[in-house]
Amino acid sequence: MDFRLTEEQIILRDSTRRMMDRHATPDYIRRLDREDAYPEDLYAQWVEMGLLRLPFAEEFGGLSGDGIDLILVAEELAAKSYDFFSAFGASIFCGLNVVRHGTDEQKQLWIPPLLAGKIKMSISMSEPDAGSDVGAMRCSAVRDGSDWIINGQKVWASGAGARNNVINLYVRTDPNAPHRSALSLFLVPNDLPGITLRKLDMLGRRCVGTYEIFFDNVRVPADNLIGQAGHGWQCMLSGLQIERVTAAAGYCGGARSAFELALDYAKERKQFGRAIGTNQVIAHMLADLQAEIEVARTMVWRAGWAMGQGDPDALRLITIAKLVASETYVKAANCGMQVFGGAGYNMEYDMQRHFRDSRSCTIAAGTSQMQRNLLSGLMGLKVH
Amino acid sequence: MDFRLTEEQIILRDSTRRMMDRHATPDYIRRLDREDAYPEDLYAQWVEMGLLRLPFAEEFGGLSGDGIDLILVAEELAAKSYDFFSAFGASIFCGLNVVRHGTDEQKQLWIPPLLAGKIKMSISMSEPDAGSDVGAMRCSAVRDGSDWIINGQKVWASGAGARNNVINLYVRTDPNAPHRSALSLFLVPNDLPGITLRKLDMLGRRCVGTYEIFFDNVRVPADNLIGQAGHGWQCMLSGLQIERVTAAAGYCGGARSAFELALDYAKERKQFGRAIGTNQVIAHMLADLQAEIEVARTMVWRAGWAMGQGDPDALRLITIAKLVASETYVKAANCGMQVFGGAGYNMEYDMQRHFRDSRSCTIAAGTSQMQRNLLSGLMGLKVH
Amino acid sequence: MDFRLTEEQIILRDSTRRMMDRHATPDYIRRLDREDAYPEDLYAQWVEMGLLRLPFAEEFGGLSGDGIDLILVAEELAAKSYDFFSAFGASIFCGLNVVRHGTDEQKQLWIPPLLAGKIKMSISMSEPDAGSDVGAMRCSAVRDGSDWIINGQKVWASGAGARNNVINLYVRTDPNAPHRSALSLFLVPNDLPGITLRKLDMLGRRCVGTYEIFFDNVRVPADNLIGQAGHGWQCMLSGLQIERVTAAAGYCGGARSAFELALDYAKERKQFGRAIGTNQVIAHMLADLQAEIEVARTMVWRAGWAMGQGDPDALRLITIAKLVASETYVKAANCGMQVFGGAGYNMEYDMQRHFRDSRSCTIAAGTSQMQRNLLSGLMGLKVH
Amino acid sequence: MDFRLTEEQIILRDSTRRMMDRHATPDYIRRLDREDAYPEDLYAQWVEMGLLRLPFAEEFGGLSGDGIDLILVAEELAAKSYDFFSAFGASIFCGLNVVRHGTDEQKQLWIPPLLAGKIKMSISMSEPDAGSDVGAMRCSAVRDGSDWIINGQKVWASGAGARNNVINLYVRTDPNAPHRSALSLFLVPNDLPGITLRKLDMLGRRCVGTYEIFFDNVRVPADNLIGQAGHGWQCMLSGLQIERVTAAAGYCGGARSAFELALDYAKERKQFGRAIGTNQVIAHMLADLQAEIEVARTMVWRAGWAMGQGDPDALRLITIAKLVASETYVKAANCGMQVFGGAGYNMEYDMQRHFRDSRSCTIAAGTSQMQRNLLSGLMGLKVH
Repeated sequence: MDFRLTEEQIILRDSTRRMMDRHATPDYIRRLDREDAYPEDLYAQWVEMGLLRLPFAEEFGGLSGDGIDLILVAEELAAKSYDFFSAFGASIFCGLNVVRHGTDEQKQLWIPPLLAGKIKMSISMSEPDAGSDVGAMRCSAVRDGSDWIINGQKVWASGAGARNNVINLYVRTDPNAPHRSALSLFLVPNDLPGITLRKLDMLGRRCVGTYEIFFDNVRVPADNLIGQAGHGWQCMLSGLQIERVTAAAGYCGGARSAFELALDYAKERKQFGRAIGTNQVIAHMLADLQAEIEVARTMVWRAGWAMGQGDPDALRLITIAKLVASETYVKAANCGMQVFGGAGYNMEYDMQRHFRDSRSCTIAAGTSQMQRNLLSGLMGLKVH
Repeated sequence: MDFRLTEEQIILRDSTRRMMDRHATPDYIRRLDREDAYPEDLYAQWVEMGLLRLPFAEEFGGLSGDGIDLILVAEELAAKSYDFFSAFGASIFCGLNVVRHGTDEQKQLWIPPLLAGKIKMSISMSEPDAGSDVGAMRCSAVRDGSDWIINGQKVWASGAGARNNVINLYVRTDPNAPHRSALSLFLVPNDLPGITLRKLDMLGRRCVGTYEIFFDNVRVPADNLIGQAGHGWQCMLSGLQIERVTAAAGYCGGARSAFELALDYAKERKQFGRAIGTNQVIAHMLADLQAEIEVARTMVWRAGWAMGQGDPDALRLITIAKLVASETYVKAANCGMQVFGGAGYNMEYDMQRHFRDSRSCTIAAGTSQMQRNLLSGLMGLKVH
Repeated sequence: MDFRLTEEQIILRDSTRRMMDRHATPDYIRRLDREDAYPEDLYAQWVEMGLLRLPFAEEFGGLSGDGIDLILVAEELAAKSYDFFSAFGASIFCGLNVVRHGTDEQKQLWIPPLLAGKIKMSISMSEPDAGSDVGAMRCSAVRDGSDWIINGQKVWASGAGARNNVINLYVRTDPNAPHRSALSLFLVPNDLPGITLRKLDMLGRRCVGTYEIFFDNVRVPADNLIGQAGHGWQCMLSGLQIERVTAAAGYCGGARSAFELALDYAKERKQFGRAIGTNQVIAHMLADLQAEIEVARTMVWRAGWAMGQGDPDALRLITIAKLVASETYVKAANCGMQVFGGAGYNMEYDMQRHFRDSRSCTIAAGTSQMQRNLLSGLMGLKVH
Repeated sequence: MDFRLTEEQIILRDSTRRMMDRHATPDYIRRLDREDAYPEDLYAQWVEMGLLRLPFAEEFGGLSGDGIDLILVAEELAAKSYDFFSAFGASIFCGLNVVRHGTDEQKQLWIPPLLAGKIKMSISMSEPDAGSDVGAMRCSAVRDGSDWIINGQKVWASGAGARNNVINLYVRTDPNAPHRSALSLFLVPNDLPGITLRKLDMLGRRCVGTYEIFFDNVRVPADNLIGQAGHGWQCMLSGLQIERVTAAAGYCGGARSAFELALDYAKERKQFGRAIGTNQVIAHMLADLQAEIEVARTMVWRAGWAMGQGDPDALRLITIAKLVASETYVKAANCGMQVFGGAGYNMEYDMQRHFRDSRSCTIAAGTSQMQRNLLSGLMGLKVH
């Protein structure tokens, strides 16, 4: 067993942190959050630094980074803003899915521009009546000559409206089959005719944004179907592990920042002639937080390593990491609010953004209840 | 022992609820929250219905209602919006303080217009460096002939900017005395020359609003001093009990609404072909919430009754009620967010408002940590 | 609303407390716990003081006390030992059930000796495969002339082996009917031929004791059937409310004692030159405990009052009271162990008894999970 | 980063597990627990298998195992019984302390017989008034020619009375110096004249046992002083890290067993026609437990690795591991009790032993509160 990072990993982590310190300044983050604006400039910096290339193979211009590399970057990006990080994550997960399931032509068509920042990618699965229950999906594509015609409605689609974004869209291509063979994955540029995007007004994660999408006879060439028709479920599943473990690393980053803000405030803020952090109950609250974050981070490392090894236990470890890290971020922000007192409630401080942004983390990418259901199944408990 | 409400109390509660149903509609609440607008129309309804008169003696046109009456009304108002309720609460507490400590002239001058809705009242104590630590207050008033001249800065002043509002302002009138004899209470109309109000951008409770106030040589006649100079600490303490127990009743109202929204959603929202509330973990989460709310409400009743009886144990009971009810509202909104899933994160639904509004409740009117310190002291534990 | 106790209630409570202080001394409790011995002497004191007569009508020599009276006594008895209290509780519940469902002859036969302490009563329902699931009961009685013949096995039967104890035994009298019409209630003196009692070695509540009972052709006269054959389920249900609310009062008593022991220890025990209770985290742990106990007690009062009033909401309130009070006792003992440190682990101190005795309280008389299921059903959530 | 165990580590872990399965059978554990008997036979097996030699250098006949090796063994031993494991742990920690601070003669005198099982070792520090507060120690040794004379009383001394046990005793050798230079470490065979041992009756961990020790003019040769006089504090501190991280591994073992017992029972126990583990609230309780245990274990690995590397962050990581793992074992046993219901309360099942044994884990080897104080200090919060 070895918990050491390689020298390259330390450089990767530290240079990512420095880049973020330089570009994702508090003012930048606050302004974009206030204006609900997508972090285009920052995304361009990630491209320039080569971060988008990290997990891809060299044949696509990638750097062949492993799970640990990706986790280190995810924590650093999300430490500034989990919302910002989610734009990075989506492009990565979608691109890796294309690599796994696309034809050679598709890979050559989509991956290089993704890595060069000419396009972005985002996922769209949920529908008004199909959240955790993917099988209830009704948005559909019907074959029409060399094209497919898409109709229906999606919701909770993060980042769907970004500039040059290609929606990785899961739709039903067989109206009658069970969901394991009824769904298909299409790459759908978000400016095709017939697409209407509506940015929803959400509590948090306001920059990358959450969209409702309406598809009205949207025509997509058959080449944009990834994998075969009916293989959507397999595509979806194959990307879940990397999505969840990277998200979990991001939660650790968010939790770390909320914790550090709270710790700094507890040292600076004086009441009754002393720093509030010298109150034992505040100190212990922070000690527990630090412990939980360290523990979640260590678990994320292990899960990311297991995934990279193709360990059959990886699904279980990733599920644990996702569950624990998401709950930790929610708790960190909630405790942070208590430490900040009235100041935490003020939009001029950053804690309220953590409070808002974090709250989606036990809901998105599989609710905590779904993770526990999954763990229950893995331990042989078939829940009613 | 008797847990029955009188017939008058049932009428009071039910008619208050009906009035709120009629005027504080979901659309009204959402619009004001979105526009950061003070609920002037609704406040006028309260005046018209006579609710402002409830706890005052008949000599001032009051109804001589007791603690239970006030608690019942508080829960109903806050069930629609804790923020709205806080405007009612502030006028009541401030008015009762004037009755307790003012001269006959002062009472006749201020109370009738308050009950008639011609003026409102709000409290202002906190300063940038004086939150829980009241003794660190620096905003001051200096005698100048028949006037006092006020200088300094206040912060976290709820409702200070409402139309025709009279700030019940605690300032230092003795620069050297310990805080128990250094503070004084002044009634300061918020449109006096030299006053600058800045509405802060806050996470929640956006309608009644939180203000920063700057006093630049604000001249106030000596008649506006309530009690004698140096008696501010006594004025403050004497109002704390009723403020906290009524706030606690309000928290129960907020928690009840968050719970009811979550329960309704759990019955309506289908996933995997059944209502999500039929999942045992969701059902039990709601069962626990219901239990906690019922328990908090029962405690609030007891505390309110004890206060009305002048029971020497009332301080302890009120402190428990405040602590428990505030934590319950925070928890109810947090659980509600989990039940709502993605919809809870959407600003078009009401749960996110509960999530934002509730979060101040374990901070304002004495943090949960301050309540526990107080309880520790009452049980003979002098905390370091 | 009125939270005042009557003068009679205060006298009842205080004299019960004094009696318990005198007879249930720490030495007495420790000795019986060590020796797994039934508190015969103490039970005799209760009889002498008339406590057994409390809830019964005057026609049986009773005092016609109401729900609040019973709750006050329950808290005082259980404050010394929840285990001891359970002997009192069982006699009361069983006796009241006989009053509700028995014939006049049966009442005259069984109640006066019960109130005079000549017999005791205990309940027996659970079987190895029928715990929460009463319908799975297999122990049976078959009619044989003017007698019934009982065969089968019972388990977790509290107090079954006490001197002169009459087991209130639920058995199946119809092998095929659904449980609502298949069960019957028999009064079975524990020394009848064919009965074998085995006292189980249990973690706690060792004095009144938990028994396994084997019935081998036990012959009981038909007069010992309470209510008609097949009415057992109704008998059982009709006693649940008073059992649970009185148990909940007992949990408050246990929790109060654990809390008081912990508080006293926190004041006395010095480390680093000061009482450990002056550590803020210890003080706040105790403050939260005190709050939870006060809140649970208040809820128990309300539930007991509602039951006495025949309030249709009583079932819900009692369920909440049972759930909350039982969890509170478990928590109080667990926190108490932490406050006591090594001393809590020592059998010479009383905290470990609370730790052991309390742990059954979220399990017996309906697990916390069953209470939450019940609450879920009452709020319209049919759990899968 | 690499989470792989070496082939040797896998063999070590698996063979330790097999040995424990063979010798620490359920019957053996229950019998010893019932009889308060020290596991002499099992200890002999450990010696025979060479486990005692694991962390020692080859010059003493050791195997030069590293931190991970020790952690793996600790989890396996404690999975059967944390109590049993503590006997192993004590001999190891004490022996390593002698290696670190003893002279060559002392090492050659004490280590080989320790590894050969001819002697055992145990620690004794606490006194009636000196628990967490080591500085309050009063038991003392006074120089008398070539001997030291020990007088005083110790308490909470685990395993002090084992056969051929050598107490590693911390006493005051300078009555006036501050504790950092006042204490000294002596090796004191437990059968020296003047020593009286009293095995305390404790809630749990009854086999290895907890002792009160009285020293009445106990004469010890100066050669038995380890390190110089006044260096006791350094000796104590230098062993704390390995003690705590190995204890933390043991807690994971205990928690794992409690969890596995609960999971098995949840699958077997039927109520309402189905296994109780198919209730979602039971399944999720177990899912959360599994997650917490996996997370604690991963943290223990990291802490153990960091210690082995001499990482300056090791103290912080070990403190987190100790805190988290101990709380996890307590929680696992508590949840296990709820899953077992009445059966958990029965001394014929093993869950109640976990409930009793685990409860000391957040108290011994530094309470959870002391760990949080330590973490607070490390993050720059000087707690009052």
